[in-house]
Amino acid sequence: MARGRRPGGADTRKVVLDAARRRFAEVGYARASLRSIAAEAAVDPSLVVHYFGSKEGLFRAVIEWPFDPAVFLDQLTAAGPDGLGRRLAAGFLGMWESADTGPRLQAVFRAAVTDADVTALIREFLTEVLAERLIMVIGRERAEQRVELALGTLLGIAVVRHILRVEPLAGLPLDELVDQIAPAVQQQLGGALTVD
Amino acid sequence: MARGRRPGGADTRKVVLDAARRRFAEVGYARASLRSIAAEAAVDPSLVVHYFGSKEGLFRAVIEWPFDPAVFLDQLTAAGPDGLGRRLAAGFLGMWESADTGPRLQAVFRAAVTDADVTALIREFLTEVLAERLIMVIGRERAEQRVELALGTLLGIAVVRHILRVEPLAGLPLDELVDQIAPAVQQQLGGALTVD
Repeated sequence: MARGRRPGGADTRKVVLDAARRRFAEVGYARASLRSIAAEAAVDPSLVVHYFGSKEGLFRAVIEWPFDPAVFLDQLTAAGPDGLGRRLAAGFLGMWESADTGPRLQAVFRAAVTDADVTALIREFLTEVLAERLIMVIGRERAEQRVELALGTLLGIAVVRHILRVEPLAGLPLDELVDQIAPAVQQQLGGALTVD
Repeated sequence: MARGRRPGGADTRKVVLDAARRRFAEVGYARASLRSIAAEAAVDPSLVVHYFGSKEGLFRAVIEWPFDPAVFLDQLTAAGPDGLGRRLAAGFLGMWESADTGPRLQAVFRAAVTDADVTALIREFLTEVLAERLIMVIGRERAEQRVELALGTLLGIAVVRHILRVEPLAGLPLDELVDQIAPAVQQQLGGALTVD
Protein backbone atom coordinates (compact mmCIF):
# COMPACT_ATOMS: atom_id res chain seq x y z
CA MET A 1 0.00 0.00 0.00
CA ALA A 2 1.58 3.33 -1.08
CA ARG A 3 2.14 5.87 1.74
CA GLY A 4 -0.44 8.61 1.98
CA ARG A 5 -3.07 6.72 0.05
CA ARG A 6 -6.24 6.15 2.07
CA PRO A 7 -7.71 2.97 0.73
CA GLY A 8 -11.30 3.57 1.81
CA GLY A 9 -12.02 4.63 5.37
CA ALA A 10 -14.70 3.66 7.86
CA ASP A 11 -17.47 3.23 5.28
CA THR A 12 -15.46 0.79 3.19
CA ARG A 13 -14.56 -1.22 6.28
CA LYS A 14 -18.24 -1.48 7.12
CA VAL A 15 -19.15 -2.48 3.54
CA VAL A 16 -16.56 -5.29 3.68
CA LEU A 17 -17.80 -6.45 7.10
CA ASP A 18 -21.40 -6.52 5.92
CA ALA A 19 -20.41 -8.48 2.82
CA ALA A 20 -18.44 -10.96 4.94
CA ARG A 21 -21.34 -11.39 7.33
CA ARG A 22 -23.67 -12.21 4.45
CA ARG A 23 -21.22 -14.64 2.83
CA PHE A 24 -20.43 -16.46 6.10
CA ALA A 25 -24.16 -16.76 6.84
CA GLU A 26 -24.93 -18.02 3.34
CA VAL A 27 -22.20 -20.56 2.68
CA GLY A 28 -20.36 -21.00 6.01
CA TYR A 29 -16.82 -20.02 6.96
CA ALA A 30 -14.87 -22.58 4.93
CA ARG A 31 -16.64 -21.92 1.64
CA ALA A 32 -16.72 -18.11 1.85
CA SER A 33 -13.47 -17.11 0.13
CA LEU A 34 -11.81 -13.78 0.85
CA ARG A 35 -12.03 -13.15 -2.89
CA SER A 36 -15.80 -13.76 -2.99
CA ILE A 37 -16.27 -11.45 0.00
CA ALA A 38 -14.25 -8.73 -1.75
CA ALA A 39 -16.36 -9.25 -4.89
CA GLU A 40 -19.58 -8.99 -2.84
CA ALA A 41 -18.27 -5.75 -1.31
CA ALA A 42 -17.08 -4.52 -4.74
CA VAL A 43 -13.54 -3.82 -3.46
CA ASP A 44 -10.11 -5.22 -4.28
CA PRO A 45 -9.13 -8.30 -2.20
CA SER A 46 -5.94 -6.46 -1.08
CA LEU A 47 -8.16 -3.92 0.65
CA VAL A 48 -9.79 -6.68 2.70
CA VAL A 49 -6.33 -7.89 3.73
CA HIS A 50 -5.33 -4.31 4.57
CA TYR A 51 -8.24 -3.91 7.00
CA PHE A 52 -8.52 -7.38 8.52
CA GLY A 53 -5.23 -9.19 7.82
CA SER A 54 -6.84 -12.49 6.77
CA LYS A 55 -10.15 -14.32 6.44
CA GLU A 56 -9.78 -15.34 10.09
CA GLY A 57 -9.29 -11.71 11.11
CA LEU A 58 -12.33 -10.78 9.12
CA PHE A 59 -14.36 -13.52 10.76
CA ARG A 60 -13.22 -12.42 14.21
CA ALA A 61 -14.37 -8.89 13.41
CA VAL A 62 -17.71 -10.28 12.30
CA ILE A 63 -18.25 -12.44 15.39
CA GLU A 64 -17.09 -9.84 17.89
CA TRP A 65 -19.57 -7.32 16.64
CA PRO A 66 -22.80 -8.93 17.89
CA PHE A 67 -21.33 -9.77 21.28
CA ASP A 68 -19.61 -6.43 21.97
CA PRO A 69 -18.00 -8.36 24.83
CA ALA A 70 -16.70 -5.42 26.87
CA VAL A 71 -20.04 -3.61 27.09
CA PHE A 72 -22.05 -6.82 27.49
CA LEU A 73 -19.89 -8.14 30.31
CA ASP A 74 -19.66 -4.78 32.08
CA GLN A 75 -23.44 -4.60 32.22
CA LEU A 76 -23.70 -8.17 33.46
CA THR A 77 -21.02 -8.05 36.09
CA ALA A 78 -21.20 -4.49 37.45
CA ALA A 79 -23.59 -5.59 40.23
CA GLY A 80 -21.38 -8.51 41.32
CA PRO A 81 -22.26 -12.19 41.63
CA ASP A 82 -25.77 -11.86 43.11
CA GLY A 83 -28.41 -12.28 40.43
CA LEU A 84 -25.70 -12.90 37.85
CA GLY A 85 -27.50 -16.05 36.69
CA ARG A 86 -30.58 -14.09 35.72
CA ARG A 87 -28.64 -11.25 34.09
CA LEU A 88 -26.49 -13.70 32.13
CA ALA A 89 -29.57 -15.67 30.99
CA ALA A 90 -31.43 -12.50 29.99
CA GLY A 91 -28.40 -10.99 28.24
CA PHE A 92 -27.33 -14.15 26.41
CA LEU A 93 -30.78 -15.27 25.30
CA GLY A 94 -31.71 -11.65 24.50
CA MET A 95 -28.90 -11.51 21.94
CA TRP A 96 -30.23 -14.67 20.24
CA GLU A 97 -33.70 -13.09 20.25
CA SER A 98 -32.67 -9.79 18.70
CA ALA A 99 -33.39 -9.23 15.00
CA ASP A 100 -29.99 -7.56 14.80
CA THR A 101 -27.69 -10.01 16.59
CA GLY A 102 -29.75 -13.23 16.47
CA PRO A 103 -29.12 -14.21 12.83
CA ARG A 104 -25.43 -13.43 13.24
CA LEU A 105 -25.15 -15.66 16.29
CA GLN A 106 -26.87 -18.45 14.39
CA ALA A 107 -24.41 -18.11 11.52
CA VAL A 108 -21.48 -18.14 13.95
CA PHE A 109 -22.82 -21.19 15.75
CA ARG A 110 -23.40 -23.15 12.53
CA ALA A 111 -19.85 -22.36 11.44
CA ALA A 112 -18.51 -23.27 14.90
CA VAL A 113 -19.96 -26.79 14.83
CA THR A 114 -19.11 -27.63 11.23
CA ASP A 115 -15.73 -26.03 10.45
CA ALA A 116 -12.75 -27.05 12.57
CA ASP A 117 -10.92 -23.74 12.07
CA VAL A 118 -13.94 -21.76 13.21
CA THR A 119 -14.38 -24.14 16.15
CA ALA A 120 -10.91 -23.18 17.34
CA LEU A 121 -11.75 -19.51 16.89
CA ILE A 122 -14.96 -19.77 18.90
CA ARG A 123 -13.26 -21.83 21.60
CA GLU A 124 -10.68 -19.06 21.96
CA PHE A 125 -13.38 -16.42 22.07
CA LEU A 126 -15.40 -18.29 24.69
CA THR A 127 -12.50 -18.98 27.00
CA GLU A 128 -10.34 -15.88 26.63
CA VAL A 129 -12.96 -13.20 26.24
CA LEU A 130 -16.28 -14.28 27.68
CA ALA A 131 -15.39 -16.84 30.34
CA GLU A 132 -12.34 -15.05 31.73
CA ARG A 133 -14.34 -11.97 32.72
CA LEU A 134 -17.14 -14.01 34.25
CA ILE A 135 -14.63 -16.08 36.21
CA MET A 136 -13.22 -12.90 37.75
CA VAL A 137 -16.69 -11.91 38.95
CA ILE A 138 -17.81 -15.19 40.46
CA GLY A 139 -14.40 -15.84 42.06
CA ARG A 140 -15.27 -19.27 43.43
CA GLU A 141 -13.61 -22.66 43.38
CA ARG A 142 -13.92 -24.33 39.97
CA ALA A 143 -14.95 -20.99 38.47
CA GLU A 144 -14.00 -21.92 34.90
CA GLN A 145 -16.04 -25.10 35.05
CA ARG A 146 -19.00 -23.23 36.54
CA VAL A 147 -18.93 -20.58 33.82
CA GLU A 148 -18.70 -23.21 31.09
CA LEU A 149 -21.64 -25.16 32.52
CA ALA A 150 -23.72 -21.97 32.67
CA LEU A 151 -22.77 -20.88 29.14
CA GLY A 152 -23.28 -24.43 27.86
CA THR A 153 -26.75 -24.53 29.38
CA LEU A 154 -27.71 -21.21 27.79
CA LEU A 155 -26.21 -22.24 24.45
CA GLY A 156 -28.23 -25.46 24.45
CA ILE A 157 -31.45 -23.58 25.26
CA ALA A 158 -30.68 -21.12 22.43
CA VAL A 159 -30.13 -24.02 20.00
CA VAL A 160 -33.41 -25.73 20.95
CA ARG A 161 -35.28 -22.42 20.72
CA HIS A 162 -33.73 -20.68 17.72
CA ILE A 163 -32.12 -23.38 15.57
CA LEU A 164 -34.09 -26.59 16.18
CA ARG A 165 -37.15 -24.39 16.95
CA VAL A 166 -38.86 -26.91 19.19
CA GLU A 167 -42.23 -25.82 20.60
CA PRO A 168 -43.28 -24.78 23.21
CA LEU A 169 -39.79 -23.46 24.02
CA ALA A 170 -39.45 -21.68 20.68
CA GLY A 171 -42.60 -19.63 21.25
CA LEU A 172 -42.17 -18.83 24.95
CA PRO A 173 -41.84 -15.09 25.72
CA LEU A 174 -38.26 -14.23 26.65
CA ASP A 175 -39.04 -13.07 30.20
CA GLU A 176 -40.85 -16.34 30.97
CA LEU A 177 -37.95 -18.32 29.56
CA VAL A 178 -35.51 -16.33 31.71
CA ASP A 179 -37.69 -17.01 34.78
CA GLN A 180 -37.48 -20.73 33.99
CA ILE A 181 -33.76 -20.92 33.35
CA ALA A 182 -32.24 -18.36 35.75
CA PRO A 183 -32.30 -20.60 38.86
CA ALA A 184 -30.39 -23.38 37.07
CA VAL A 185 -27.82 -20.93 35.70
CA GLN A 186 -27.37 -19.30 39.09
CA GLN A 187 -26.95 -22.73 40.66
CA GLN A 188 -24.27 -23.59 38.13
CA LEU A 189 -22.39 -20.33 38.72
CA GLY A 190 -22.36 -21.06 42.44
CA GLY A 191 -25.00 -22.90 44.43
CA ALA A 192 -24.78 -20.67 47.47
CA LEU A 193 -25.19 -17.39 45.60
CA THR A 194 -28.49 -15.54 45.91
CA VAL A 195 -31.08 -16.46 43.31
CA ASP A 196 -33.07 -13.31 42.58
CA MET B 1 -39.75 -56.62 -6.71
CA ALA B 2 -40.60 -60.13 -8.12
CA ARG B 3 -42.39 -62.44 -5.67
CA GLY B 4 -40.22 -65.01 -3.97
CA ARG B 5 -37.02 -63.09 -4.59
CA ARG B 6 -35.27 -62.13 -1.34
CA PRO B 7 -33.46 -58.87 -2.07
CA GLY B 8 -30.76 -59.25 0.53
CA GLY B 9 -31.83 -59.87 4.13
CA ALA B 10 -30.54 -58.54 7.43
CA ASP B 11 -26.90 -58.35 6.33
CA THR B 12 -27.69 -56.20 3.31
CA ARG B 13 -29.83 -53.89 5.42
CA LYS B 14 -26.90 -53.43 7.79
CA VAL B 15 -24.46 -52.81 4.93
CA VAL B 16 -26.75 -50.07 3.58
CA LEU B 17 -27.15 -48.51 7.06
CA ASP B 18 -23.39 -48.49 7.61
CA ALA B 19 -22.84 -46.91 4.20
CA ALA B 20 -25.48 -44.25 4.93
CA ARG B 21 -23.94 -43.49 8.31
CA ARG B 22 -20.55 -42.93 6.69
CA ARG B 23 -21.95 -40.75 3.89
CA PHE B 24 -24.07 -38.60 6.25
CA ALA B 25 -21.08 -38.13 8.55
CA GLU B 26 -18.76 -37.27 5.66
CA VAL B 27 -20.83 -34.88 3.55
CA GLY B 28 -23.96 -34.11 5.61
CA TYR B 29 -27.57 -35.08 4.99
CA ALA B 30 -28.33 -32.79 2.04
CA ARG B 31 -25.29 -33.79 -0.03
CA ALA B 32 -25.44 -37.55 0.60
CA SER B 33 -27.62 -38.82 -2.26
CA LEU B 34 -29.52 -42.07 -1.99
CA ARG B 35 -27.68 -43.11 -5.16
CA SER B 36 -24.24 -42.42 -3.63
CA ILE B 37 -25.21 -44.37 -0.51
CA ALA B 38 -26.31 -47.32 -2.67
CA ALA B 39 -23.00 -47.10 -4.55
CA GLU B 40 -21.05 -47.05 -1.27
CA ALA B 41 -22.98 -50.15 -0.15
CA ALA B 42 -22.55 -51.77 -3.60
CA VAL B 43 -26.30 -52.41 -3.96
CA ASP B 44 -28.96 -51.20 -6.39
CA PRO B 45 -30.70 -47.94 -5.32
CA SER B 46 -34.08 -49.71 -5.57
CA LEU B 47 -32.96 -51.98 -2.76
CA VAL B 48 -32.34 -48.97 -0.50
CA VAL B 49 -35.87 -47.74 -1.28
CA HIS B 50 -37.21 -51.23 -0.59
CA TYR B 51 -35.72 -51.30 2.91
CA PHE B 52 -36.05 -47.66 4.00
CA GLY B 53 -38.62 -46.02 1.70
CA SER B 54 -36.63 -42.83 1.15
CA LYS B 55 -33.48 -40.96 2.13
CA GLU B 56 -35.40 -39.55 5.11
CA GLY B 57 -36.41 -43.07 6.17
CA LEU B 58 -32.82 -44.12 5.88
CA PHE B 59 -31.64 -41.17 7.94
CA ARG B 60 -34.24 -41.91 10.61
CA ALA B 61 -32.95 -45.47 10.79
CA VAL B 62 -29.42 -44.10 11.16
CA ILE B 63 -30.28 -41.63 13.92
CA GLU B 64 -32.54 -43.98 15.86
CA TRP B 65 -29.80 -46.54 16.15
CA PRO B 66 -27.50 -44.76 18.64
CA PHE B 67 -30.39 -43.59 20.80
CA ASP B 68 -32.32 -46.88 20.91
CA PRO B 69 -35.06 -44.70 22.43
CA ALA B 70 -37.26 -47.44 23.86
CA VAL B 71 -34.51 -49.14 25.87
CA PHE B 72 -32.86 -45.84 26.85
CA LEU B 73 -36.08 -44.30 28.12
CA ASP B 74 -37.25 -47.46 29.88
CA GLN B 75 -34.02 -47.54 31.87
CA LEU B 76 -34.29 -43.84 32.70
CA THR B 77 -37.91 -43.75 33.68
CA ALA B 78 -38.52 -47.16 35.32
CA ALA B 79 -37.76 -45.70 38.77
CA GLY B 80 -40.13 -42.73 38.33
CA PRO B 81 -39.43 -39.03 38.63
CA ASP B 82 -37.10 -39.11 41.68
CA GLY B 83 -33.48 -38.90 40.59
CA LEU B 84 -34.55 -38.63 36.97
CA GLY B 85 -32.33 -35.56 36.52
CA ARG B 86 -29.23 -37.54 37.39
CA ARG B 87 -30.20 -40.57 35.31
CA LEU B 88 -31.06 -38.40 32.32
CA ALA B 89 -27.77 -36.48 32.62
CA ALA B 90 -25.73 -39.68 32.99
CA GLY B 91 -27.56 -41.44 30.14
CA PHE B 92 -27.54 -38.53 27.71
CA LEU B 93 -23.93 -37.44 28.31
CA GLY B 94 -22.84 -41.09 28.45
CA MET B 95 -24.05 -41.57 24.88
CA TRP B 96 -21.97 -38.58 23.71
CA GLU B 97 -18.99 -40.06 25.58
CA SER B 98 -19.23 -43.52 24.06
CA ALA B 99 -16.81 -44.45 21.27
CA ASP B 100 -19.73 -46.22 19.62
CA THR B 101 -22.55 -43.67 19.78
CA GLY B 102 -20.62 -40.42 20.35
CA PRO B 103 -19.37 -39.85 16.78
CA ARG B 104 -22.83 -40.68 15.41
CA LEU B 105 -24.48 -38.16 17.71
CA GLN B 106 -21.97 -35.53 16.60
CA ALA B 107 -22.74 -36.23 12.94
CA VAL B 108 -26.48 -36.04 13.63
CA PHE B 109 -26.10 -32.79 15.53
CA ARG B 110 -23.99 -31.16 12.81
CA ALA B 111 -26.57 -32.15 10.21
CA ALA B 112 -29.39 -30.91 12.48
CA VAL B 113 -27.99 -27.39 12.76
CA THR B 114 -26.95 -26.95 9.13
CA ASP B 115 -29.57 -28.71 6.96
CA ALA B 116 -33.17 -27.50 7.26
CA ASP B 117 -34.64 -30.87 6.28
CA VAL B 118 -32.63 -32.68 8.93
CA THR B 119 -33.58 -29.98 11.46
CA ALA B 120 -37.24 -30.89 10.92
CA LEU B 121 -36.41 -34.58 11.30
CA ILE B 122 -34.55 -34.03 14.57
CA ARG B 123 -37.27 -31.73 15.90
CA GLU B 124 -39.79 -34.50 15.25
CA PHE B 125 -37.54 -37.06 16.91
CA LEU B 126 -36.99 -34.87 19.98
CA THR B 127 -40.64 -34.03 20.52
CA GLU B 128 -42.43 -37.19 19.46
CA VAL B 129 -40.04 -39.86 20.66
CA LEU B 130 -37.79 -38.55 23.41
CA ALA B 131 -39.79 -35.73 25.01
CA GLU B 132 -43.18 -37.46 24.95
CA ARG B 133 -42.00 -40.37 27.08
CA LEU B 134 -40.24 -38.11 29.56
CA ILE B 135 -43.34 -35.92 29.81
CA MET B 136 -45.41 -38.95 30.78
CA VAL B 137 -43.00 -39.72 33.61
CA ILE B 138 -42.65 -36.28 35.14
CA GLY B 139 -46.41 -35.56 34.79
CA ARG B 140 -46.23 -31.99 36.09
CA GLU B 141 -47.54 -28.66 34.87
CA ARG B 142 -45.57 -27.35 31.88
CA ALA B 143 -44.02 -30.79 31.43
CA GLU B 144 -43.09 -30.27 27.77
CA GLN B 145 -41.30 -27.04 28.56
CA ARG B 146 -39.47 -28.66 31.49
CA VAL B 147 -38.29 -31.58 29.37
CA GLU B 148 -37.09 -29.25 26.62
CA LEU B 149 -35.17 -27.09 29.10
CA ALA B 150 -33.51 -30.18 30.56
CA LEU B 151 -32.65 -31.67 27.16
CA GLY B 152 -31.48 -28.26 25.93
CA THR B 153 -29.19 -27.92 28.93
CA LEU B 154 -27.67 -31.34 28.36
CA LEU B 155 -27.33 -30.72 24.63
CA GLY B 156 -25.47 -27.46 25.28
CA ILE B 157 -23.10 -29.16 27.74
CA ALA B 158 -22.46 -31.93 25.16
CA VAL B 159 -21.69 -29.31 22.50
CA VAL B 160 -19.23 -27.41 24.74
CA ARG B 161 -17.58 -30.68 25.80
CA HIS B 162 -17.53 -32.76 22.61
CA ILE B 163 -17.81 -30.35 19.69
CA LEU B 164 -16.29 -27.03 20.84
CA ARG B 165 -14.06 -29.05 23.23
CA VAL B 166 -13.59 -26.26 25.74
CA GLU B 167 -11.37 -27.09 28.72
CA PRO B 168 -11.75 -27.85 31.61
CA LEU B 169 -15.23 -29.16 30.73
CA ALA B 170 -13.94 -31.31 27.86
CA GLY B 171 -11.52 -33.19 30.12
CA LEU B 172 -13.72 -33.61 33.20
CA PRO B 173 -14.49 -37.26 34.09
CA LEU B 174 -18.10 -38.12 33.22
CA ASP B 175 -19.16 -38.87 36.80
CA GLU B 176 -17.87 -35.50 38.03
CA LEU B 177 -19.68 -33.76 35.18
CA VAL B 178 -22.90 -35.59 36.06
CA ASP B 179 -22.48 -34.51 39.71
CA GLN B 180 -22.18 -30.91 38.55
CA ILE B 181 -25.10 -30.88 36.16
CA ALA B 182 -27.66 -33.23 37.77
CA PRO B 183 -29.08 -30.68 40.27
CA ALA B 184 -29.79 -28.15 37.49
CA VAL B 185 -31.42 -30.81 35.30
CA GLN B 186 -33.53 -32.09 38.19
CA GLN B 187 -34.56 -28.53 39.00
CA GLN B 188 -35.66 -28.01 35.40
CA LEU B 189 -37.67 -31.23 35.34
CA GLY B 190 -39.48 -30.13 38.49
CA GLY B 191 -38.09 -28.02 41.29
CA ALA B 192 -39.83 -29.94 44.06
CA LEU B 193 -38.65 -33.39 42.99
CA THR B 194 -35.98 -35.09 45.03
CA VAL B 195 -32.43 -34.33 43.98
CA ASP B 196 -30.40 -37.46 44.63
